[in-house]
Amino acid sequence: MRKDPKLFQHGTLAMLVAGLFDGTMSIEELLKHGDSGIGTCSGLDGEMVILDGIAYTIRRNGTVEALSGDVKTPFACVHFDPKSPGQKVSGFSLPELEAYLKGQGMGNIFYAVKLTGRFAKMKTRTVFKQEKPYPGLSEVADQQAVFEGENTTGTLIGYYAPDLYQGIASSGFHLHYLSADHALGGHVLDFQLAEADLSLTPFIHLPTSNADFLQANFDLASLNDQIQQAEH
Amino acid sequence: MRKDPKLFQHGTLAMLVAGLFDGTMSIEELLKHGDSGIGTCSGLDGEMVILDGIAYTIRRNGTVEALSGDVKTPFACVHFDPKSPGQKVSGFSLPELEAYLKGQGMGNIFYAVKLTGRFAKMKTRTVFKQEKPYPGLSEVADQQAVFEGENTTGTLIGYYAPDLYQGIASSGFHLHYLSADHALGGHVLDFQLAEADLSLTPFIHLPTSNADFLQANFDLASLNDQIQQAEH
Repeated sequence: MRKDPKLFQHGTLAMLVAGLFDGTMSIEELLKHGDSGIGTCSGLDGEMVILDGIAYTIRRNGTVEALSGDVKTPFACVHFDPKSPGQKVSGFSLPELEAYLKGQGMGNIFYAVKLTGRFAKMKTRTVFKQEKPYPGLSEVADQQAVFEGENTTGTLIGYYAPDLYQGIASSGFHLHYLSADHALGGHVLDFQLAEADLSLTPFIHLPTSNADFLQANFDLASLNDQIQQAEH
Repeated sequence: MRKDPKLFQHGTLAMLVAGLFDGTMSIEELLKHGDSGIGTCSGLDGEMVILDGIAYTIRRNGTVEALSGDVKTPFACVHFDPKSPGQKVSGFSLPELEAYLKGQGMGNIFYAVKLTGRFAKMKTRTVFKQEKPYPGLSEVADQQAVFEGENTTGTLIGYYAPDLYQGIASSGFHLHYLSADHALGGHVLDFQLAEADLSLTPFIHLPTSNADFLQANFDLASLNDQIQQAEH
């Protein structure tokens, strides 16, 4: 039996927003649940990229390091890459990629996205390792290091989360990048694609073939009131 | 290797709020992912209770029916009951149970809860089967049938979701009940416990042994702004 692709997530983004940066799961344990994904290390020590079963961190000075199994993470998402054949895409910027995928009815689905190829432009950031007492995530993001590269070859990996998942994940795209030569990486702020293979891995505990669901607009502003009224 | 307890959820509560009541997963498929849980049927046809690998629905007239494998559900949560020994509890009302568990540091953890025993009072509701075009969930809840019983013996089962999961789940407790004689059941509105075994099954992809996390108060009101600022 083919197993459905599953996303494994440790922690929530809301925990990082609240400054809960202590690592609480080892990389060794994390990699039992997936060979591909993104995350961060204890103390928010860099941006993590997991590819082919190896976890890397991109540090504040831009260096890339493969992590040993005993390093701990407060927040990471992994899945097993089904290595399904991708589609050739070219020319997209980040907003254009998002608009393209939403146009294909992917706006309400939670899925992994991987782009492997050449990027005309790539702009990333990394956060800095923090010490206790930890600040909140938005203060940390104000001090980020930004890196830019042209004509880099590498892998962009991450997730698209529908708006409903804001807080558990980061709604919309949450993407990290690692160049093949390990000279550039981090949390993706922007890019301009030259050409790449695009592969998508939907996590299908949602009704991915139901037309009403795919087209629905969820009114998050009134959701809390409506659930309180209906369920209690 | 002991497997960590996992929650399997099909659909989201936000989908029900938006009136997406079409069943999109069969009971046969659902029961591959768990033997215990809660849900509803296509068209919001009653309140579903899953116990020991059998899915039951409690209909608008209060009758209880075991569901065949081809019945479809738009929303259900299941897990495999680890059958771990419970603790004897007595006298709790629903708010008292919630306060007791929050006091034990369970407020930020997602877990299954099961109470098996005798209830001095039990108040449930069931929703009515809807036809297309479907109304929203809050309109349906206005027309619910309410049932009350005294000194009933049975099983209360469901989940506690931290506030962050509002919309994906129903934040707080979401509990269904089925009496041993199948004379009373539905979505639990209130109860007064006589005495029962209480068993809790935490889903541990969250850092359940990290004291900072267990005690944290998450500011959901500002969460969206903070993530937008930090991650984009």
